[in-house]
Amino acid sequence: MKEEKILLSHGSGGKLSYNLIKELFLANFNNSYLERLDDGAVLNIDGLRLAYTTDSYTVDPLFFNGGNIGELAVYGTVNDLAMCGAEPSYLSCSFIIEEGFPLSLLEKIISSIKKASLVAHVDIVTGDTKVVNKGAADKIFINTTGIGVVKEGINISGNNAQVGDLIVINGPIGNHGIAVLSEREGLKFETEIKSDTAPLSSLVAEMLEVSKDIHVLRDPTRGGLSTTLNEIALSSKVDIEINEGDIPIQEEVRAACEILGYDPLCLANEGKLVAFIPSKIAPNVLKKMKENKYGKESKIIGRVVKKSEGKVYLNTTIGGERIVDMLTGEQLPRIC
Amino acid sequence: MKEEKILLSHGSGGKLSYNLIKELFLANFNNSYLERLDDGAVLNIDGLRLAYTTDSYTVDPLFFNGGNIGELAVYGTVNDLAMCGAEPSYLSCSFIIEEGFPLSLLEKIISSIKKASLVAHVDIVTGDTKVVNKGAADKIFINTTGIGVVKEGINISGNNAQVGDLIVINGPIGNHGIAVLSEREGLKFETEIKSDTAPLSSLVAEMLEVSKDIHVLRDPTRGGLSTTLNEIALSSKVDIEINEGDIPIQEEVRAACEILGYDPLCLANEGKLVAFIPSKIAPNVLKKMKENKYGKESKIIGRVVKKSEGKVYLNTTIGGERIVDMLTGEQLPRIC
Repeated sequence: MKEEKILLSHGSGGKLSYNLIKELFLANFNNSYLERLDDGAVLNIDGLRLAYTTDSYTVDPLFFNGGNIGELAVYGTVNDLAMCGAEPSYLSCSFIIEEGFPLSLLEKIISSIKKASLVAHVDIVTGDTKVVNKGAADKIFINTTGIGVVKEGINISGNNAQVGDLIVINGPIGNHGIAVLSEREGLKFETEIKSDTAPLSSLVAEMLEVSKDIHVLRDPTRGGLSTTLNEIALSSKVDIEINEGDIPIQEEVRAACEILGYDPLCLANEGKLVAFIPSKIAPNVLKKMKENKYGKESKIIGRVVKKSEGKVYLNTTIGGERIVDMLTGEQLPRIC
Repeated sequence: MKEEKILLSHGSGGKLSYNLIKELFLANFNNSYLERLDDGAVLNIDGLRLAYTTDSYTVDPLFFNGGNIGELAVYGTVNDLAMCGAEPSYLSCSFIIEEGFPLSLLEKIISSIKKASLVAHVDIVTGDTKVVNKGAADKIFINTTGIGVVKEGINISGNNAQVGDLIVINGPIGNHGIAVLSEREGLKFETEIKSDTAPLSSLVAEMLEVSKDIHVLRDPTRGGLSTTLNEIALSSKVDIEINEGDIPIQEEVRAACEILGYDPLCLANEGKLVAFIPSKIAPNVLKKMKENKYGKESKIIGRVVKKSEGKVYLNTTIGGERIVDMLTGEQLPRIC
């Protein structure tokens, strides 16, 4: 019998990740928080509602056009807190460093973390540093775990999508994936493609000021937009319909995808969110989003169409319809 | 000019770790929580006092006599919460896995984490899984970050040691270090030496039931007892005196240290704590400790002698006195 091994696609954020989480982690650590399969847990401690989320960052290369591992480690976790409807407050920061890593690079990363934490208004309050022998880790890995307070009346979860909800995205997809890939492979494009790495907490706070009745917030990171929408469709037991022509994609990213054979719907983003909003309040939320630095290109890209087992349909630009699946396999390992 | 590089001793938990934390992390992420240099931060969120702590586990080998990386990842973080005087409640759990890692081993680790979380009464409420290419990480690294509630009236910190405090340890030191080392190097001893990996939260809760006026709690993990006592002496600006003859060490551990050239005072422990207790209440706390499974061999090993710049003195068994310093260099990388 062949021994089963962990594959890169178990960490892709796509279908195999989803199965591993369901079959191994959920099966063992079974509790109501994990069950929701959200980006974080919303704990209730003595009446205080706290969002709690963790991520390890293994991005390769460490520095890329538009960001670096330090910035990513702050904004990625801040965004996961924001996707729970929380105001991010505190981060822990834990390093695993390979022996021989240049101190000057560590200083550069620390300085990026500091800057990002100031931008996102979070304090780094506790940490850990491990050093492993040369060859036992590739340069540096960073874990950040975050805490934020969720205000009364906010109930955001991947379970909450409802028929009739409009789906909004805050700008073009795929930039982070292509930016990291081109840095890694030394590819050059005529126009530069920058990662969209950004903190989304102020955008989310402003959206929630318009209405607390936002049903779902999720950032389409690993696995991309297609995986995120599939997860929501499965969790909420609804079907989703999106319109290809409405999905914002930068022309250069589209061209790069065509040349390299990538599907932009499966590429990682680090400054994007999808929001599921009741159609009544969607116009006002959208208006507010467009006023924010990170929401200028916000667009409605689809809607929740019916109760079902959880499928995502794409109305193509040429008038057809196709089912969009979760990412299968692994497009780009170590993208975040 | 030679470029400065990260050394194994930056992760030893000893002097170089201390300097790195002070000069790089504290200097950048400057805030009142980090400044205390405790095992975790005690946050005040809307009047609720929450302990918050993080650790990455990189132990090699993954399985050793008396424990494994999964158990360690739960108990290590639970203990850091307990050392803040908190009752551990929630853990996050984040994995970095090397491509090709056997699924069966992952299942074994997950099952250990589950068991340990049941023993320590904590829920694993959120997680993350990254898979990196073969060779980019050595097998598996685990980060756990934990939250626990600190009750009113408890104020435990490495800053709080006071002249006259008695210093108590809950049992023999050095077992974890020697157990991992012998597993790694394939050493055999006549009697088996087992890691002391254990959850200390119930012991701490019982100690605090006797009196909330315990000044310092700290688990002497990386860097061992000598480093921990030095950190406390520096933070509290006091001198500490310990008696060599009173420090419990298993005979087999002592023999192994002599053969291998290790100082037991610098070896890592994973189920030990030192407590600084006002002399008046110390006898009652000690009595209570001895009733707990993990405190049976508790002993008074020394006391805080005077306000000073922070030195640790050892009264040796042959009647001399020597200064005990923090661990310098790295005795055993990847011990936890």
